[in-house]
Amino acid sequence: MSKRTEKTIVDIAEELNLSVSTVSRALNDHPNISAKTKEKVKKMARKMGYRPNTMAAGLRNNKSKTIGLVVPRISMFFPATISTVIQNKLQEHGYNLLICQSNDSYEQEIALADTLYSARVDALAVSTTLYTTDFSHFDVFIENNIPLVFFDRVPKDYNVKVIKGDDYLGGLTVTKHLIERGCKDIVHISGPLTCNLYIERVAGYKSALQQHKIPFKKSRIFYHELTRENALQTCEKIFAQQPYPDGIFAANDTTAITILEYCRKIKLRVPEDIKIAGYSNDPRTEIITPSITSVDQYPALMGEKVAAALLELLQQSKPVQQKYNEEIIPIKLIARASTEGPVVKVRGKKK
Amino acid sequence: MSKRTEKTIVDIAEELNLSVSTVSRALNDHPNISAKTKEKVKKMARKMGYRPNTMAAGLRNNKSKTIGLVVPRISMFFPATISTVIQNKLQEHGYNLLICQSNDSYEQEIALADTLYSARVDALAVSTTLYTTDFSHFDVFIENNIPLVFFDRVPKDYNVKVIKGDDYLGGLTVTKHLIERGCKDIVHISGPLTCNLYIERVAGYKSALQQHKIPFKKSRIFYHELTRENALQTCEKIFAQQPYPDGIFAANDTTAITILEYCRKIKLRVPEDIKIAGYSNDPRTEIITPSITSVDQYPALMGEKVAAALLELLQQSKPVQQKYNEEIIPIKLIARASTEGPVVKVRGKKK
Repeated sequence: MSKRTEKTIVDIAEELNLSVSTVSRALNDHPNISAKTKEKVKKMARKMGYRPNTMAAGLRNNKSKTIGLVVPRISMFFPATISTVIQNKLQEHGYNLLICQSNDSYEQEIALADTLYSARVDALAVSTTLYTTDFSHFDVFIENNIPLVFFDRVPKDYNVKVIKGDDYLGGLTVTKHLIERGCKDIVHISGPLTCNLYIERVAGYKSALQQHKIPFKKSRIFYHELTRENALQTCEKIFAQQPYPDGIFAANDTTAITILEYCRKIKLRVPEDIKIAGYSNDPRTEIITPSITSVDQYPALMGEKVAAALLELLQQSKPVQQKYNEEIIPIKLIARASTEGPVVKVRGKKK
Repeated sequence: MSKRTEKTIVDIAEELNLSVSTVSRALNDHPNISAKTKEKVKKMARKMGYRPNTMAAGLRNNKSKTIGLVVPRISMFFPATISTVIQNKLQEHGYNLLICQSNDSYEQEIALADTLYSARVDALAVSTTLYTTDFSHFDVFIENNIPLVFFDRVPKDYNVKVIKGDDYLGGLTVTKHLIERGCKDIVHISGPLTCNLYIERVAGYKSALQQHKIPFKKSRIFYHELTRENALQTCEKIFAQQPYPDGIFAANDTTAITILEYCRKIKLRVPEDIKIAGYSNDPRTEIITPSITSVDQYPALMGEKVAAALLELLQQSKPVQQKYNEEIIPIKLIARASTEGPVVKVRGKKK
């Protein structure tokens, strides 16, 4: 294991023949220090391997200019887009972003919260795992006045800023769209109900059925982690017996794409025999044939709101007062070939 | 800004009525401490907001059990897959991963190297920006014996472990495949030559032409950041005048997909009128119609090798001896519909 002899600001001051206070102020971007001196000091600090954390113990109030981000999976289109927007916005204000992925493991999320706390982030943004219902591993941030913002997958009763999509409206809109295109027997494939957004999409699905007087059947709804493997297993179940559904609303696009490929394999025509809709507007939904109807969740807008919320909390000069405060990002149905067909008259309430 | 009163192990010891050395050893997973005590201490440490970095200044040799990763873009299939494999492997050994994306900005990469150094990572893995030719911002890791591994986009003359794809063979294989499918006028779209792997893919492209006695034309090669926007601009140039090329080898899949869509728009048939191949085997190449020929770079294998290299360096008990040491990951051509056609007899060397 590595042995380090940590350098202090005293070493930098000696090396540059400057006073310790000048070095300290240069490193902290004090306005009285010239840009040239700041650059010289920072360059030497880098060269000497100086780490700000090794500052004298008395300096309790040091800022790392680093912000932490925890997302379920960096490879998914939606969190990847949000992460990049957050990073670009924060960078404009001199912050660097440390990204961690929980891989939808609750234990991993706890470990990452600890890791980012120890890495001394100035603020933290989180989209939780599918299974996070206890948020106490983030208490340490609140207790230490470190700004905390949740987005997309969020808590309900926790004193934090929350920025989320309109998942109820999303579920309602997709299901109504399928009904208006003639579907009468719609399967919904949902994520686990430990996660807020799936509860809401399911509620939207049920509301749409009810509004159109289509009976809700428990057997037409499936819950699992929305992976390709799970989608294939669910297809085996759905198409094991007649009658087949005439519409499928999948709560993510990976599932919708997998179902489309499965239907192709068993010679079901999409959209003629069965209509398919996904969620999140992953670019793959546009390039596949037929293209797949999905829901745009405006990830760039969500990323901007998250960055703005973090910056606002960071600018508070007093200890940060975190309280529950919800902001809703709109959604938009993107109708594509996978749900094409004549608009049919449907029973139920007029819009 | 937040004011923190940092807690020390002394505070934790007092709170739990344990000795300071027991708390210290529990936090450092010492084998003599019971799992129960470790859990109790860690829980209290978390509750009290204890950060390991605030350990007594004498403890120079503390490990963060955290590893840093810098990649160009987390949203790209190839680095996202590698990152996830690295994370999973390191987690098995008790390490958490902090991921940073440079967005292909050299300045940003320098800032992130500083940030991860300050975050006290125990080791660092890097895939550089397209423009990184000076690697001195990573010197501080080498000088302080912090293991450093580069992958995919790597330096040539820098004393580090390097794990890379066989990009020369990749460029050669794709170009030969196009020639064997009848292409005689092949455009190559490359990334900037500041980045090692594009130099090698271009060399492979040129070798294949030479082997088949097809003259190399400077006007048939384009260099840019391989974004969708750049691909569209390049299409405008390529198809502004006849004769059109009969084959295009794009150095990434985003570019190949964009070209395919462009050809569709101008009513060129793929593969009949023009054949298209990409690079990296992004899942999108498989779902688009026609599916696109690409090169599998075995990202999971590369991720495993990177994790293994990090762990090996971390296990060295003496100061880490970093020296240039290259490991090559194989490639495999994945032939798909976009290059289909009869295999033609071609001039040049036999295989």
